[in-house]
Amino acid sequence: MVRAVELAARGAGTVLPNPVVGCVLLDAHGHTVGEGWHERAGGPHAEVNALRAAGDTARGATAVVTLEPCNHTGRTGPCSEALLAAGVTRVVVAVRDPWPTAAGGIERLRAAGVDVVLVTPALAAPAEDVNRVWLVATRLGRPFVTFKAGVTADGRVAAADGTSRWITSAESRADVHLLRSRVDTMMVGVGTVLADDPWLTVRDSDGMPIGPQPLRVVLDSVGRTPPGARVLDDAAETLVATAADFGGGLRVDPAAVLSELYRRGRRHVLLEGGPTLATAMLDDDLVDEMLCYTAPVVFGAGRMMLDGGRTATLVEARRAELREVRRCGPDVMLRYAFR
Amino acid sequence: MVRAVELAARGAGTVLPNPVVGCVLLDAHGHTVGEGWHERAGGPHAEVNALRAAGDTARGATAVVTLEPCNHTGRTGPCSEALLAAGVTRVVVAVRDPWPTAAGGIERLRAAGVDVVLVTPALAAPAEDVNRVWLVATRLGRPFVTFKAGVTADGRVAAADGTSRWITSAESRADVHLLRSRVDTMMVGVGTVLADDPWLTVRDSDGMPIGPQPLRVVLDSVGRTPPGARVLDDAAETLVATAADFGGGLRVDPAAVLSELYRRGRRHVLLEGGPTLATAMLDDDLVDEMLCYTAPVVFGAGRMMLDGGRTATLVEARRAELREVRRCGPDVMLRYAFR
Repeated sequence: MVRAVELAARGAGTVLPNPVVGCVLLDAHGHTVGEGWHERAGGPHAEVNALRAAGDTARGATAVVTLEPCNHTGRTGPCSEALLAAGVTRVVVAVRDPWPTAAGGIERLRAAGVDVVLVTPALAAPAEDVNRVWLVATRLGRPFVTFKAGVTADGRVAAADGTSRWITSAESRADVHLLRSRVDTMMVGVGTVLADDPWLTVRDSDGMPIGPQPLRVVLDSVGRTPPGARVLDDAAETLVATAADFGGGLRVDPAAVLSELYRRGRRHVLLEGGPTLATAMLDDDLVDEMLCYTAPVVFGAGRMMLDGGRTATLVEARRAELREVRRCGPDVMLRYAFR
Repeated sequence: MVRAVELAARGAGTVLPNPVVGCVLLDAHGHTVGEGWHERAGGPHAEVNALRAAGDTARGATAVVTLEPCNHTGRTGPCSEALLAAGVTRVVVAVRDPWPTAAGGIERLRAAGVDVVLVTPALAAPAEDVNRVWLVATRLGRPFVTFKAGVTADGRVAAADGTSRWITSAESRADVHLLRSRVDTMMVGVGTVLADDPWLTVRDSDGMPIGPQPLRVVLDSVGRTPPGARVLDDAAETLVATAADFGGGLRVDPAAVLSELYRRGRRHVLLEGGPTLATAMLDDDLVDEMLCYTAPVVFGAGRMMLDGGRTATLVEARRAELREVRRCGPDVMLRYAFR
């Protein structure tokens, strides 16, 4: 399963709005006879790729898959049938498919006499984590939301005079561009547009836009985005979400915007600020993970990474889990998952 | 040298006000014939322990030491003479002794015909880091200051209502008690005494004071420490430093307090808050390292770990170096060194 998760991870950023999936085929002696992963939306599923690699050796084999094999015909045929046709006799599954349309693969396989095993929660956790974007989006009917901040060691995103470029290192900023290239949507509040006038595009080290660009979303209750703002250039599509269109009251409702984004096929929102919007969305349970690119510098004054929240006391505070710690040049990246 | 640094580290917390030192003796074939470290103040130095372990095999050997061998007679004799008497013919040194009274070992050895090599800065860095407390204190004539904070992922040390017990995990708090057991002084501002009424003692997991206790210091400009405060109990010595005794003006001067502590033989101050005092001391270049025990929780409101500082813009900000990243249960400890 560890290997299947590694394979699944290779699809990160190219399979949206689909899940990442990895599959390993083992013969009776436990030797690998085929491997596959879901490489791009519309392309063959992980199981089909692994079966192709295995050829005839798939007969009598065990398939280890990170996600329940699908049971429906979309752009490709059902994987449950492909596994049966190839003569696979045992299937080890980490995570059940939460999407009603495709679910039922396990029941179909069992009905045909295949031995299907669901792994323990501890073994399933890495398969759940690698596919967290799609799983959470599918379960909740809204995109998975990653909040990212470049912060000082004392948790600030701008100095007292508002300067913030650049708190983090070139290595951290390159990492953020890789992250941007793997999401399908980027979101900011209008305050960030007014303060920083960001492009919100995926750029190479020379600052030139590269590859397909995520949708840019500005939460802008009363329409303050200036006509000349960089987010309105033609480098990528942009949605300026106002209270009139989303929420109806005085303030734009982030949950309504997320629902609409899901309806439009968007599954992964990278929230890049500002602090007030991020805190409000955290308070409303609309943030799934938080990435803190933390620079070895202290301000002792200035704008906080999160601010204006409703938490009054320790026991009310949102708890998370530290999932990843990684050095980025002189900085450290901390990834937290909210439950 | 890597091994010598490992040996030196064993003295952490038991040698103050002395340096930690490690020594490895190698024969002509590069085999280790003796190892030693400075184990406790007043006890034999690292070189002497290594020479004892080596016995006659020290003749013609190379001594690898983390700090220049001393050249004076304190509670023990000069190590330079001990190395000469044992017949050591080559000495590899990482860091020169900044203490004028003991320095000169290298010159003494060279005058006697010993080949003395100072390693490159890259190789010296770990020896410098392991002995940072003593080296910085000796160079600056004030104790080394470690600022420690238990913070949320968004850099806060208390929720909006002031609650802060406990932000961090039992594992982090146990780590802090280990740290407290290795310093000779603990310092807080009077605000922390009034808000939290801490004991500032080294305690075991049952909360009972253990071992020799560091000196407790309260910076208290106008004498607001209540007579019944826990820091005034008889579990340890306490110095309440007021503006009348240290500074003369309206506010106590932390630099004056540190000078007095150095005069009294104190070499390592653990600063445990509050945010205003810590930020003021950072602004005055009086903090040498910062330990952030960071819990996987967000407040979005409440007291910041550093606050009220003079930094107005990014380029003025105090830069540090991330020296250590270590998980403590669900938390992560980040250690920063200021330059």
